[in-house]
Amino acid sequence: MRKISDAIKSGAEAYMSRQNRTIAALALILAAIIYAAYFAAKGEDITARRMTISFAAGALCSILAGFSGMWVSIRANIRVAAAARNSLGKAMQVALRSGAVTGLAVTSLSILGVSVLFAYFDGINNPKEVPGQIVAFGFGASFVALFAQLGGGIYTKAADVGADLVGKVEAGIPEDDPRNPAVIADLVGDNVGDCAGRGADIFESTAAENIGAMILGVSLYKIFGIAGVLFPLYTCALGLVASIVGVFAVRLSNEKDDPMDALNRGFYISSALALGGFYIAVQQLLGGNMWLFGAGAIGIVTSFLFVFLTQYYTDHRYRPVRFIAESCTTGPATTIISGISIGLECTGLVTLSITAAILGSYWMGVQAALPGVSTLASGLYGTAIATMGVLSTAAYVLAMDTFGPITDNAGGIAEMSKQAPEVRHRTDLLDAAGNTTKALTKGYAIGSAALAAFLLFSAYIDEVKMVLAQRRGVEFESIPFSVDIGQVPVFIGALLGAMLVFLFSSFAIQAVGKVAQTVIHEVRRQFREKPGIMKGTEDPDYGQCVDIVTAGALKAMILPGMLPVLGPVAVGLFFRNFAPATDGTPMGVCAVAAMLMVGTITGILLATFMNNGGGAWDNAKKYIELGSHGGKGSDAHKASVVGDTVGDPFKDTAGPSIHVLVKLISTITLVAAPLFL
Amino acid sequence: MRKISDAIKSGAEAYMSRQNRTIAALALILAAIIYAAYFAAKGEDITARRMTISFAAGALCSILAGFSGMWVSIRANIRVAAAARNSLGKAMQVALRSGAVTGLAVTSLSILGVSVLFAYFDGINNPKEVPGQIVAFGFGASFVALFAQLGGGIYTKAADVGADLVGKVEAGIPEDDPRNPAVIADLVGDNVGDCAGRGADIFESTAAENIGAMILGVSLYKIFGIAGVLFPLYTCALGLVASIVGVFAVRLSNEKDDPMDALNRGFYISSALALGGFYIAVQQLLGGNMWLFGAGAIGIVTSFLFVFLTQYYTDHRYRPVRFIAESCTTGPATTIISGISIGLECTGLVTLSITAAILGSYWMGVQAALPGVSTLASGLYGTAIATMGVLSTAAYVLAMDTFGPITDNAGGIAEMSKQAPEVRHRTDLLDAAGNTTKALTKGYAIGSAALAAFLLFSAYIDEVKMVLAQRRGVEFESIPFSVDIGQVPVFIGALLGAMLVFLFSSFAIQAVGKVAQTVIHEVRRQFREKPGIMKGTEDPDYGQCVDIVTAGALKAMILPGMLPVLGPVAVGLFFRNFAPATDGTPMGVCAVAAMLMVGTITGILLATFMNNGGGAWDNAKKYIELGSHGGKGSDAHKASVVGDTVGDPFKDTAGPSIHVLVKLISTITLVAAPLFL
Repeated sequence: MRKISDAIKSGAEAYMSRQNRTIAALALILAAIIYAAYFAAKGEDITARRMTISFAAGALCSILAGFSGMWVSIRANIRVAAAARNSLGKAMQVALRSGAVTGLAVTSLSILGVSVLFAYFDGINNPKEVPGQIVAFGFGASFVALFAQLGGGIYTKAADVGADLVGKVEAGIPEDDPRNPAVIADLVGDNVGDCAGRGADIFESTAAENIGAMILGVSLYKIFGIAGVLFPLYTCALGLVASIVGVFAVRLSNEKDDPMDALNRGFYISSALALGGFYIAVQQLLGGNMWLFGAGAIGIVTSFLFVFLTQYYTDHRYRPVRFIAESCTTGPATTIISGISIGLECTGLVTLSITAAILGSYWMGVQAALPGVSTLASGLYGTAIATMGVLSTAAYVLAMDTFGPITDNAGGIAEMSKQAPEVRHRTDLLDAAGNTTKALTKGYAIGSAALAAFLLFSAYIDEVKMVLAQRRGVEFESIPFSVDIGQVPVFIGALLGAMLVFLFSSFAIQAVGKVAQTVIHEVRRQFREKPGIMKGTEDPDYGQCVDIVTAGALKAMILPGMLPVLGPVAVGLFFRNFAPATDGTPMGVCAVAAMLMVGTITGILLATFMNNGGGAWDNAKKYIELGSHGGKGSDAHKASVVGDTVGDPFKDTAGPSIHVLVKLISTITLVAAPLFL
Repeated sequence: MRKISDAIKSGAEAYMSRQNRTIAALALILAAIIYAAYFAAKGEDITARRMTISFAAGALCSILAGFSGMWVSIRANIRVAAAARNSLGKAMQVALRSGAVTGLAVTSLSILGVSVLFAYFDGINNPKEVPGQIVAFGFGASFVALFAQLGGGIYTKAADVGADLVGKVEAGIPEDDPRNPAVIADLVGDNVGDCAGRGADIFESTAAENIGAMILGVSLYKIFGIAGVLFPLYTCALGLVASIVGVFAVRLSNEKDDPMDALNRGFYISSALALGGFYIAVQQLLGGNMWLFGAGAIGIVTSFLFVFLTQYYTDHRYRPVRFIAESCTTGPATTIISGISIGLECTGLVTLSITAAILGSYWMGVQAALPGVSTLASGLYGTAIATMGVLSTAAYVLAMDTFGPITDNAGGIAEMSKQAPEVRHRTDLLDAAGNTTKALTKGYAIGSAALAAFLLFSAYIDEVKMVLAQRRGVEFESIPFSVDIGQVPVFIGALLGAMLVFLFSSFAIQAVGKVAQTVIHEVRRQFREKPGIMKGTEDPDYGQCVDIVTAGALKAMILPGMLPVLGPVAVGLFFRNFAPATDGTPMGVCAVAAMLMVGTITGILLATFMNNGGGAWDNAKKYIELGSHGGKGSDAHKASVVGDTVGDPFKDTAGPSIHVLVKLISTITLVAAPLFL
């Protein structure tokens, strides 16, 4: 066990340190550009410096968040495998509590980062200006999260696809077989992709949501004062406490208990406590306005809905996965066709949930009847509070998510170190639950990303109006601002925003394919040159595969990563000098706003399609492996393996990267807005 | 030959008459609703009656257009096969000129329908009102086109996928083998899907574009008078003449000549003549304004660009298809992954072309400096003229398109009637060119749909403003109208618009899968119960397969077909009573406008992805069959067959149906707009 775990650890650490160096270099260049651009635009030093500091802090915290996820995971995997020799309950507790280390570290880092910056910039005395400066913290976080998720996602899937195609399909050896030279790279991938990537992603969601909500809180300053600005941080902190209780409440009473049921119980407890926390926060900071509490409750219910819908579309107890499994009997082509159609279909209910959440919380916000605030602004504050509701259990959800790769790795270690069958049975049970939680958190992450993005572009519009009000020397409220998509440049911005998401997905998927090809060739070479590997008399060179994937993933993440950074800036600068809209809104910011909104819409749909389509294929394969349609080794099973392989880059590379992309384009436009005016 | 051709003919005619009865019944119900709704809303009879008449006329003409395509095709296929016994050039000429019958019939029907209604409603004396009433002609046309394309698309691909999966993959018999019971259904499908569907599609594009441009012409009435309103019809008529010359110019000098080169020559000639026609029309009707001529020229260049980009992404001479073919060597999973990534990638350049066309022609329109017209209106007129430019060669393009299924069928007839090898070689050459033209026309159709939709929502905004101006008793120009996507209901409309396209695609693809399953079970049953079929001693029951597909396709088209009809109406009515936007724009029309625009954007991207992804898989298979990566029978070839099968419902069902969907949501909102106010 130690030998395997050490190999995983050293591979993961080597990758992470190279990845972080690359990302840090890119972030440094960007920090310099931000400073220069702000200095040139504003002609003064203080905003430029604060923006740059915030950006650097966000980037650094995001790197730490990702690193903490991986750090815990590569240490926990062997402990879980060892605990599985005693009992299922013990192993489960080790896995979840290790995951919770990440969940809590990431969420608290996010609250801490924003709070410290707020205090350091003297936000208590300048609550109207400082949130707009902390915005760059969110941008720094999403910038790092994008590369971490992309790089990790490419790594994990290139290794997985490569290992599976040569190992399972060509050589006919089982998954996690030590004879496969790419098997360690595959296990490393689980850590750097699933843990590190998702850690940076959720860090970024929480940070972006907090800052966005704080900016909206500023526009309600007249009513709630500083309490309205700090409200998001406070609810987040209460949610953290709720999550801790939830994690400790999870235990298995006996070996027959379903791990997934236990995890769900913890989620219910966390959510109920978070709801209570919301009530307290509203009483203390928002004058006990129960409509606003209602908006928060809508958010918590919506997070349930996201999780349930994902479960419906990716769990083999329900129609969609069974439909795909059924179509596996007629070969790989029908498997793919049905999976794609299910992926496309599930966007329907997910979109309707988002619609209901936005409309419902908007309505609650309007009903709150905040004095002296426009209908739009108070409605938007309602949606902001709903977003806080969704994200209040983020720490628990992230703990469940990290549970996935930890148990996956534990299973791999048990398999490779040839443990007794009951140990492997236990890790298999945990691994299955981990696959479900990984899928569920993706549903949660994209749902929260949708709401956070909606919040962020409300913040963007406020930010632009504030800059315009300052320049024109008029009241903030008197600035008209409409993103009129009937205007040609705005329509073009919208069109390009949607395109950006498609192109980004293409680049991400192509990157997986390219790196996977190099893995395939390497594994084939080893099998050819060392015939002893298959007989078990010779050790494969795991390190060579790890190196190839590391170098490939880092190179391949640059192109897709730069697209969402450069795209909005290019559009904003291009349309900057166009004639303003009829109500005087400058065209540059308008076109970028449309790009942002329609890019977000397309991103939500495409990510949902990819996450759930991929998850459904994965579980259709599992369903067949459990004995349906001929079970393992049947033609249906072979077809389902093709579906699973196609789904891999969907659900683990492109899909989760789009979550981050959606928030990155929101935060970069917030940071760059003054340049487009 | 006769026997096979007759079987195809009777199958196709039986399907078409059942399909048309179903569509006619749906159209009648809708006509009654339109009459009742307009009568109730306006309280007077004349608009209601004209709307209903226009709708019915549009629906009828669209049915005729689709029927004419199929009528010609099922008669031409055997003539082409017979001509192929003499020479390639002769066969080619028969195929193209037969296709031209459809192309010319459809385009002239479109011009004729709009002109006759215009005259019948006394448009010469009421040029401001009548185009708004003819709008329902476009809606009727798209309504029928949607069902025709969906039904035909489901039919053709269900039969194709079903026949291939059991025949080629399971039984190991070649394509178009007479022993396959589904082979006639497959050949019937080429006619009802490719000809009838595309005929109705292009009919509808031309009609919608003419009406949209006429409505914009109305807002320029002060400058050009009636000439501005009639300009679209005139350029269309000149384009028709240009297409006729182009068709007659196509000939092969010898057997070595590439059919595709000859077809391209015809396209160049048609385009050059259409450009000349544009010049004449601008001189005669638009006072020789050369900026407006420039906008038209941009349109013609853009149509070239669409065709070229499609060729780049789907022809095996270029990188994308070779990349997919290369990935076929590592199995079906990588084949699918690379095809999807190429499909997603190609949206980039296509979107940029559309962007360039819209911006360029908008700029030309603004430069035209039409006196007394707002910048926006004259810019939009520029984009309208560019759309006319794109569609001016529609008849030629449609002739090339119909060439595809005719030669496909001719190949099938030659194969099944066991013609001499050189005959089959000739039909193979034509079939290959036909596959290319089918792909190219899809690129052309989606590009023109994008521009036509852009035109239609400008028309929609004008229409709403006219109604508001009338109700409020103020000048048209003084009505503010912005589709501000920052407003919550508008954002929701946009989100639902994008979702609509995803859900529609899902339903369309699922329909193919479901009907294909029934075909597979039927073919397996026949093979099982009649063992003589495989030995060639017993005839399969072709009719049974044809019946199953017919019934299945007609039933399956209803659900996806109703979605884009009911969706916009539901959104418009839901948001009708919400508070208006800050500038007073009523929220119902606003939310629908956003739904329309973002639905269009998503539709363009998803259709491009599906059409080109599917086309690229198809040609990757052909490339391998030509001898690369092991040629026919190799593992790479098997993987490429999976890719091709997955691509089938993409490129022949969902993709082309989305073109129609995009225009249907434009026209239905135009018709239903008064209900949302």
